[in-house]
Amino acid sequence: MRASLNPLIADLSLPPIPEAQSWTRRYDGAHGPLINLSQAVPGTPPHADLLARLAEAAGSADAARYGMIEGDLALRTAYAAETAAQYGVKLDADDVAITAGCNEAFAVAAMLAAQAGDEVILPTPWYFNHQTTLSMLGITPIALPARAENGFVPDAADTRALITPRTRAIALVTPNNPTGAIYPPETLATFAALARDEGLWLILDETYRDFLADDGAPHGLFGEPDWGDNLIALYSFSKSYAVPGHRLGAMIAGPQAVEGIIKILDNLQICPARTGQIALAWAIENLRQWRADNRTDILTRAGIFTEVISRHPGWKVESIGAYFAYLRHPWPGTPAATVAERLARERGVLALPGSYFGPGQDDFLRVAFANVESAQVAALDERFAGM
Amino acid sequence: MRASLNPLIADLSLPPIPEAQSWTRRYDGAHGPLINLSQAVPGTPPHADLLARLAEAAGSADAARYGMIEGDLALRTAYAAETAAQYGVKLDADDVAITAGCNEAFAVAAMLAAQAGDEVILPTPWYFNHQTTLSMLGITPIALPARAENGFVPDAADTRALITPRTRAIALVTPNNPTGAIYPPETLATFAALARDEGLWLILDETYRDFLADDGAPHGLFGEPDWGDNLIALYSFSKSYAVPGHRLGAMIAGPQAVEGIIKILDNLQICPARTGQIALAWAIENLRQWRADNRTDILTRAGIFTEVISRHPGWKVESIGAYFAYLRHPWPGTPAATVAERLARERGVLALPGSYFGPGQDDFLRVAFANVESAQVAALDERFAGM
Repeated sequence: MRASLNPLIADLSLPPIPEAQSWTRRYDGAHGPLINLSQAVPGTPPHADLLARLAEAAGSADAARYGMIEGDLALRTAYAAETAAQYGVKLDADDVAITAGCNEAFAVAAMLAAQAGDEVILPTPWYFNHQTTLSMLGITPIALPARAENGFVPDAADTRALITPRTRAIALVTPNNPTGAIYPPETLATFAALARDEGLWLILDETYRDFLADDGAPHGLFGEPDWGDNLIALYSFSKSYAVPGHRLGAMIAGPQAVEGIIKILDNLQICPARTGQIALAWAIENLRQWRADNRTDILTRAGIFTEVISRHPGWKVESIGAYFAYLRHPWPGTPAATVAERLARERGVLALPGSYFGPGQDDFLRVAFANVESAQVAALDERFAGM
Repeated sequence: MRASLNPLIADLSLPPIPEAQSWTRRYDGAHGPLINLSQAVPGTPPHADLLARLAEAAGSADAARYGMIEGDLALRTAYAAETAAQYGVKLDADDVAITAGCNEAFAVAAMLAAQAGDEVILPTPWYFNHQTTLSMLGITPIALPARAENGFVPDAADTRALITPRTRAIALVTPNNPTGAIYPPETLATFAALARDEGLWLILDETYRDFLADDGAPHGLFGEPDWGDNLIALYSFSKSYAVPGHRLGAMIAGPQAVEGIIKILDNLQICPARTGQIALAWAIENLRQWRADNRTDILTRAGIFTEVISRHPGWKVESIGAYFAYLRHPWPGTPAATVAERLARERGVLALPGSYFGPGQDDFLRVAFANVESAQVAALDERFAGM
């Protein structure tokens, strides 16, 4: 008798990006090479000096050995110092755990906060892997609508009405995926206060924080006394250093949470892959200018994108931020997947349909404009013409 | 109000190896350098050609990019071909998924088979991370005693009595961690038949299979028609290629299971770290002789270890296999942790207490003899004298 899959896994949607990629196979190239705005993939290779450090690390017997469960001390120290400086607070290596990417960090945070049958509140549109990660663990994602008219910034007052005795956490992404929305510090303070009032975890995914236009602290949460009682902050090295293939992310949490994180990480990964850790411990301090330059380039692309879209009636940039734009298409009532497939097949432009990001998103496409060179962003003008 | 940890995580035991390592700090060096037989860590660095390939891969922009969720095609193809040749069967890349080490592979297999409230049968002594992984997911590990008098090989007939409507899988480790026991092909066939009769998953962790003395197929399960309906086989590249720091393991499963595995892996890792994948795709074919030589060395160490222990009255090698020995200590009634701590503190020999591996194991120590050079194994003679 064939064994059955855990129904939580059998019922889970398939990862959506391969489906979207399949649409591009039917593009005939008439408008030039594919412009791929689908995945949040850095458009540039890593800095040559980082590649050299990666090669040096991987060639060493040290990188082939197990490291600490929570990550190498050197990387945790460098990341704590970097974050402390950016937020104007005190943090040290013990507040940090390194993960195999930020998706693992989210899965660990979810397991730390909640078990099957519990609930976690997620603003919609959501990052699809947050929804599927919770669902595969039997945790119910509770949709908190973030409305276009509010710039896709969710409201803590709306949130309060969703809290039940099973609620364990609120998970926010800022700068947001998919909308690009940047949550104001005051909004985050309100959510932190709500989490504290209700004894919930606030899981804050800041994967895209290094692409913020502003150099100031994105929020003041780490400055609160006892921040570690409720806050778990997530980060990804993939985008900032253009190294997604090395699979490294980070979590910042208080001592009680870090002890739990270490227990979970031991079961999931024993330790993170060492090569990237060794090289990134160097890169944090030494590639500041390169990261700043990349950020400037990406902000330039954001400007070009907004301008290009403004020339095409019916299309509207509803929200644009550090890495993504959320684009309203001209055909209300037409499923976003139909629009995205047409754009891919007929114009060689791949963006993800809003429907991948939760209920009520069929009027939108997510555009990862940060992925491609400015010239390609400008070339979208011709691709959108007459759509 | 401070948020609470998920009680499944709060109640989970801490990873045990750091505790054992702490005992060695009180060793005064009187008998010479520490002989560390605690963790299953390869005693040799990777082959120089593999280090060169790792360096070359990590220095490339390609390794910095995302790969396929289920792992690079080249590595899956090479691993499928290697396994097919060893087992005398047909397997291809679609039967394989690559994970961030074999612990992640076990966690994925557990999530694929079972949800919170379900049961998975584990022979005792068990590999502690299998027990904690199930517990953190809310899955109940059901202990199946594997007895010393049966060479620590569990019995499928005993297993049948443990099956309930909540049972979803039986998880076996062969060659076994901690006992070293090598399960005979007939035993595995009986477990496979039981899984098929009952519609359960058989999760077979073969992390240590490359260290088997015999060159033949370790079992015939992949030769059964419809093996993929019930079997999920796990493997680790860490031990065989001495690359635990690169975090790579593998799963072999049927099409229904692989689809579920991909869903889970997308949430946990997006893709495995690329550097090791690129280099290992080369190493599988090109380091056969090196692996065979390592195996010979380790078998030599097993012989020396057995001989050394035979000279010390009261100590007994109850079981010895591909990587580990399970050693009975001379003081029945004394907790294994007390014995292991004394051995570490007074003699500078670190082995893990049997109590780390489940109930009823206080008479035993696990010895990872494969970790250290033959000369160190021989040096144990003096360390055990008069204990």
